[in-house]
Parts: sequence; structure tokens; C-alpha cells
Amino acid sequence: MTVDLVVKNAIVVTCDEKQTVIQNGGVAVSNGRITQIGESTALEQAAQNASNVIDGSGHILMPGLINSHCHAADSLFRGLVEDLPLEPWLQKVWTAEGAILNPQTSHLGSLLGFSELLLSGVTSTMDMFWYPVETVRAAREVGMRVSTGGIFFDGPGVDGATLDDRIASAEAFFEAFASADDVFPATMPHGAYTVGPENLKTARDITNKHGGLFSTHAAETKAEQADVEGRYGSSVIRHLDHLDLLDERTTLAHCVHLDDEEIAILARTGTTVSHNPMSNLKLASGIARIPDMLAAGVHVALGTDGAISGNDLDMWMALRLAATLHKGASQRADAVSTHEALGMATRSGARALGAADRLGSLEKGKLADMILIDVKRPHAVPMFDPVTHLVYSTAKSDVRHVFVGGEQVVRDGVLTRHTIDDTLDAVAELAPRIAATVA
Amino acid sequence: MTVDLVVKNAIVVTCDEKQTVIQNGGVAVSNGRITQIGESTALEQAAQNASNVIDGSGHILMPGLINSHCHAADSLFRGLVEDLPLEPWLQKVWTAEGAILNPQTSHLGSLLGFSELLLSGVTSTMDMFWYPVETVRAAREVGMRVSTGGIFFDGPGVDGATLDDRIASAEAFFEAFASADDVFPATMPHGAYTVGPENLKTARDITNKHGGLFSTHAAETKAEQADVEGRYGSSVIRHLDHLDLLDERTTLAHCVHLDDEEIAILARTGTTVSHNPMSNLKLASGIARIPDMLAAGVHVALGTDGAISGNDLDMWMALRLAATLHKGASQRADAVSTHEALGMATRSGARALGAADRLGSLEKGKLADMILIDVKRPHAVPMFDPVTHLVYSTAKSDVRHVFVGGEQVVRDGVLTRHTIDDTLDAVAELAPRIAATVA
Repeated sequence: MTVDLVVKNAIVVTCDEKQTVIQNGGVAVSNGRITQIGESTALEQAAQNASNVIDGSGHILMPGLINSHCHAADSLFRGLVEDLPLEPWLQKVWTAEGAILNPQTSHLGSLLGFSELLLSGVTSTMDMFWYPVETVRAAREVGMRVSTGGIFFDGPGVDGATLDDRIASAEAFFEAFASADDVFPATMPHGAYTVGPENLKTARDITNKHGGLFSTHAAETKAEQADVEGRYGSSVIRHLDHLDLLDERTTLAHCVHLDDEEIAILARTGTTVSHNPMSNLKLASGIARIPDMLAAGVHVALGTDGAISGNDLDMWMALRLAATLHKGASQRADAVSTHEALGMATRSGARALGAADRLGSLEKGKLADMILIDVKRPHAVPMFDPVTHLVYSTAKSDVRHVFVGGEQVVRDGVLTRHTIDDTLDAVAELAPRIAATVA
Repeated sequence: MTVDLVVKNAIVVTCDEKQTVIQNGGVAVSNGRITQIGESTALEQAAQNASNVIDGSGHILMPGLINSHCHAADSLFRGLVEDLPLEPWLQKVWTAEGAILNPQTSHLGSLLGFSELLLSGVTSTMDMFWYPVETVRAAREVGMRVSTGGIFFDGPGVDGATLDDRIASAEAFFEAFASADDVFPATMPHGAYTVGPENLKTARDITNKHGGLFSTHAAETKAEQADVEGRYGSSVIRHLDHLDLLDERTTLAHCVHLDDEEIAILARTGTTVSHNPMSNLKLASGIARIPDMLAAGVHVALGTDGAISGNDLDMWMALRLAATLHKGASQRADAVSTHEALGMATRSGARALGAADRLGSLEKGKLADMILIDVKRPHAVPMFDPVTHLVYSTAKSDVRHVFVGGEQVVRDGVLTRHTIDDTLDAVAELAPRIAATVA
């Protein structure tokens, strides 16, 4: 067998179920998959036959991070609307989006967001946006895996589509990307407060028919809970459960305001919660009950949300907050462990993608989505435990090399497939028009 | 007058009281002070006479950040003791410190911490540690201003000093550094739960005699409040107030657990609170009532605390959390404004140093402590408001150039006075001995 790539001499944090760490090790890769993982000494033979050998000395090798909730193209609007709670904030955001967005600008915004994410070591992203085909196009240009698909929204929405349009394009999306290994097709209705029960069911029927994924916003604010309760007589999670929308293929973004029974429903149904701590803080949504969810057995993944609420797309920030915010809020120093937090950013994200068998950890047979993190930095020395360092001290700028399916898509902190300066220039040129939408 | 330095073509965020921003501007510097600030066009003449002209295109120019609470040398112990609340955590930390620390290792740890801070754009730090003369020596080697001085601690402490030793060295510290413009001498008793009333008064008398600063930990945890209440019959802030220790020269680190009357006492006395959000979260201390303090008129500055509780020294993280954490915790989207947060990291820090007349903002006559931040980055485009970008999206790795008193101490992300690799190597060599202290 031809060996395409060997990485050796790294500190390998596998993120497997046993939390295996190899102090001096690496991987061999063939045809995009990991064929061997272990001590560096055991990789010598593979290295001699490999077309590419990378010395990982002074680096941690780990799986790429998986971002379970994003709107990458919303990076166009970062910092445009500030210091408002979710509902009035959304009204202004939608006005700006409506004036600016079309397939071309959505593609540009997605390129911007995915470039930032890939440079920071995120190799797969669940992304909800108005023009999902453009989202895929941008993800492929930089070299990232993406889960996206038809958005549902009652009323015209930013894209002006009718319900029939939405159904047709959601179906077409599945047909176009059903066999792609870099796309995880889904339907993505916006939320229970913006999409009625019939259309939620319609979106779910399409994804059921194709065996795809399903993701929506849920229980982000108290106002949303009250709104849904008022309209349908039950809180958001119960409402979604009554509609039979909750199972292992469903990812609910936020879930900030839950009672004990709602947490039990999420655990029972195997639903993934995408925790987006920075967005929840900045938009004043609140602090999700993550320790209670973990104790109840809920699958919790991590997300950045869009940069319009962030204002960046920093999964390392999300990881650090997942491990610290709940300690502070609960005043329990063991509220979320480093391994739990790191699992949210890796294995749980892979599970949300329906790809736990091939992503989320470095193991033989899995896809070679992996990153190398420079640990010869002042905030990385001394390093008594690499997992502690990853959770509490690593910064996105420490990510030096990124591989997706064995292909190097970031080399020495630079994208290999895409010239980011072109994107930054194009966005800067568009910026005055964006600013004018809220003037 | 000779012009030593002109920076032009930058977006200047002055951080002055009026929150002045100049879209295309810069500064002229002579003898370490800002002699001119304004539009780039108005700086042309100064530029022609300047020995050094820096083109700030694509950068924000702003004052250096001021870290109001740190233990830089504790970077030696980063990640050593994890997931415990403050009190049992401190017992383990002190065991490790006791086994490792001496003047030489404290100097090494301070070099490590100050290198990280200076590279991230922090130009002044209040630092409490066992060997303050070594702290100053390290700060001077990298080129940072520092406030430190004699530590007080009942019982032997990590340094094994007696009370007489502490008094003598606190006095000697003032005598050695009274006239230095890069050192702000202080006394720094550890806290009301580790230093009795008599010794707190002794420390304060020394600082009063010399016109210096005074800083201690206060109201960090509920357990500390209960301890002090039990011993002295009043809560921490009241206890300090009864001892006449609170005024404009006092900085209290943390202040997480305060009642309304304690907040009023801090406002009335002009005491500075150093808010250390990451440390408070990670150590499960709680979430400080910052919006209530700001509403009451308390001066709030920002700090990183030591990397043993952090686990890095990231003032940008502290700034982002100061602006977002309290929105999430209070569910009020306007809880802390961007200008309030940025003021904490700059002007309020200068006030805590007793240096509001010469630090904390870019203004004519002030010291040229300033930083240039690269804004041609994927998380910085578009940028509708530079202040929003600084608070919600800037990362420490965006800091490219740092000046202290007009001297360039960081150039293109590299320290100019100190070779950091030597420090990292020396710390890595010491690391096995540090690890053995908790084995």
C-alpha cells in the first residue's frame, strides 16, 4: 500500500474514547484515511515509503475541531448591530441581510467565514444559511467538510423564496450531494418561533426520506420559550418532541433555557445540543445548563454561531468557555472536565454529523482530518498535560498545519487552496454598502 | 525639538475620555512622550524630521493594555493543579511554590510571564509575588512597566521570611525604586484571610509613608467572606474599610462576592476593583457584579491573574469576557458597553497605577506606551467600528508592534530586548522538578 503522508515526533492527543495520548507519536495516511497510529519509532517503516513526511516536533497532533453551529456568511455583518437582545437584534440583522444577500455575496461571506475557521483548525462545520449550494461551493474552495441544506422559514425570508421553492431546493440539495464525502446534507428550519409545525414536519419529512440530518435553533432565549409556549401550549423542546423531530440525527443550537424534563427529553431521544457559549453571552441569552445536560446524558457539541453574534469564529474560545463558564456560574470547580470539553469539540461534533465512525478522533481507519498545534509558545510552556493545554491555553493562532482527508489545506498558517487576501479585499469593498443598511 | 518616532496612516483609538477615534492618523514621539497626535496629513512635517517613521496602514494604533492583577512568575506552574476550588487549590499551589521558588526561579517565571504579556500588547502590569526585586529585574529585561513591592503574609510563606524581614524588604523596595519611572512601588499583603489586621496596617503604613500603592486579594470566594466574617465580625470590604485601607491608591483583586453596601463603600472610597473574569470562572469563584459596580461609580480595572489559574495571561480574553460575560449572566444586552470594557483595560488601569496623568490613553504629553494591531485578518474584516473590533474580536496574536516610552520592545511579534527561546528552554528544563512537587 502506498503511504501518502506520515506525521511523526508529535504529542498525539487522539481524542478517542479512552482519551489516549502518545507522548512521541504520529500517524500514517493512505487514500485520505489513517492507516497507522502509534509511537514514532513504529512509524519508521511507513515514513521510509511515504511521499510526504512531516516532523511534528514541538507540536500537538489532534483531530480537526468540529463546529456544530455556524452561519459562516454572516461574517459579512460582524460588528454591524451591537448591544441588543436577540429579538430586536434579529430584526436589524434581517434588514441588513435582505439588502445585501444574494448567491454571490453569500458565497463571498461563506469564503470569509470558512477561511477563518479552517485556519483555526476547524475541519468540519454545520452551517445554516440562505443559499446552501453557495455554502458548499465556498467550503470546497477552501477544503472544509460542511453540513448544510435547505433552510425553512415561514414568510418570505431574506431569500424571498416561497414554500414550494424551499421544498424543491431542499430536495435538489439532497440529490446533488447525497454521495459526496465532504458534505453532510440536512434540512435546517430556522426555529420553532419562525417556522410553524406543518413546515417543521415538511422539512423533517424531506430529511427522513433521504436519511439526512436535521438542525434548528431551539430554546435560545426566555422570550422564545414564552412565544412558543403561548402559540402551541408547550415549551420548545416538548413542542419539537410532540412533532417527532428529536432523535440522533437532530442538532439543536443553543438550548439555553431548559427545565429538567426538557433535559430528560433530549437525553432520551439522543438529540445533540450545540452549545454556543460566546453567542449566548454576547446576545444576553443566558448561560446554558451544560453540567446538568452532561449529568443527564445529553450529547453536547460545540459551536461558534455566526460572527455577527460572536464577533469571530473561534472554536478555541468556545472550548475554553465550555470548560470554564460553567465552573464559574455553578461555583463548582469540577463542573465540566477537560476531557468532556474536548469531547464536545471533537467526538460529539462527529456524532452530530452522523460520522462518529469516521471523524472526531485519530484512530486507524478514520479520515485523516487533523491539525498540528505549535506548543513552543510562551503560553504553552511548561506543559504538564497536553489536554489541559488544549482546553485552557491554546489559541487559534497556534494552529500551524491543517489536513482534511490527508490533504494539507493549511500550511504554516496559510491556506493552500485559496488566496485569502482576495476575499478580504472583496469584503472590504462591499463593506460600505453593508454599513449603509443600518445607517 | 528632535522627533524620535512618527507612526502614521493608522486607525487611532485614543482611549481618551471623549473616546476619540482618528480614521487615518498617528502620533509623533520625542523623549518617550507623545508630542503630537492627529490626522496623518498633519504629521507630515514631524515625519520629515523623525529618525524613525512607521507606516501604520492596516493597523489600529492604541495605548498599551494595563494588567491590574497578575502573578507573572506563577506561569511556571500553569496547568499543574486543576479542577479544584480556590482554597484546596491554593494549598497545593503553595506546596509546589515552596519547593521550587527562590529568587532565581522567580526571575525565570517572571520573564516567562512578562514575555507573554508584552507580546500581547500589555505595557504595564501590577504584579504580586514573593521576590519583588526579581519581578522588577525581569520586567526591565523585557521592557515592561511594573507595579510591585513587598508582599505580606502571616506565617512563614513560600519565601520563609519573618515579619521583620518583610518590613525591611518592603522599605528597601521603596528606597530602591522611588524615583524610577518604570516602577510603581507598592505593598501587597496577600489578603484579609491570610494577613491579620495588624500586619495589614503595617503594610499600609509603609506605603503611606512613601506615597505608594496598595493591593490585595479581596472577596474572591464565598468561603473567604465567611472566614473573614467569622474572625473579625464583618465582611471583607467592611473589614478593610474599618482598617482605613481603602482609597484611590488601593486596588482590590477579584471582589466577586459583594453586597450593595460593600459596592457603595468601594465607590465612596475611590478604590479600584481589578476584575479577573477568566480566573474567577476557572476557579469556580463566581461572577463579579461588574454592571452593578459600574452603575455605582466603582472604578473597575482588568486583570489576567496568574497563569496558574488562567491558564494563560491574555488581556484580550479578559477584555472580551468583561464585555460579554455580564451580558449573559444578567441577560441584559447593554450590561457593559464596549467603551466601558476598553476603559477598564486602559484608563482604569492607569488610574490604579496612580498614573492617569501619563498612561492609559494616547494624548499629547502622555508617555508613548502604545501598540499596533494588524486588522488585515479574517476575523477583522469587515470592521465597521474599531472599538467593537478591539473588544469583541481582537486576538493577542494580532499585536504586531509594541512601544514602551517610545522604545520599540516588540517588532513584528518578536521581543526586541530578550530572546524568548532561552526562557522557554530554561522553563522546560525546570518542568520535571515542578511536576514532581505534586506527584
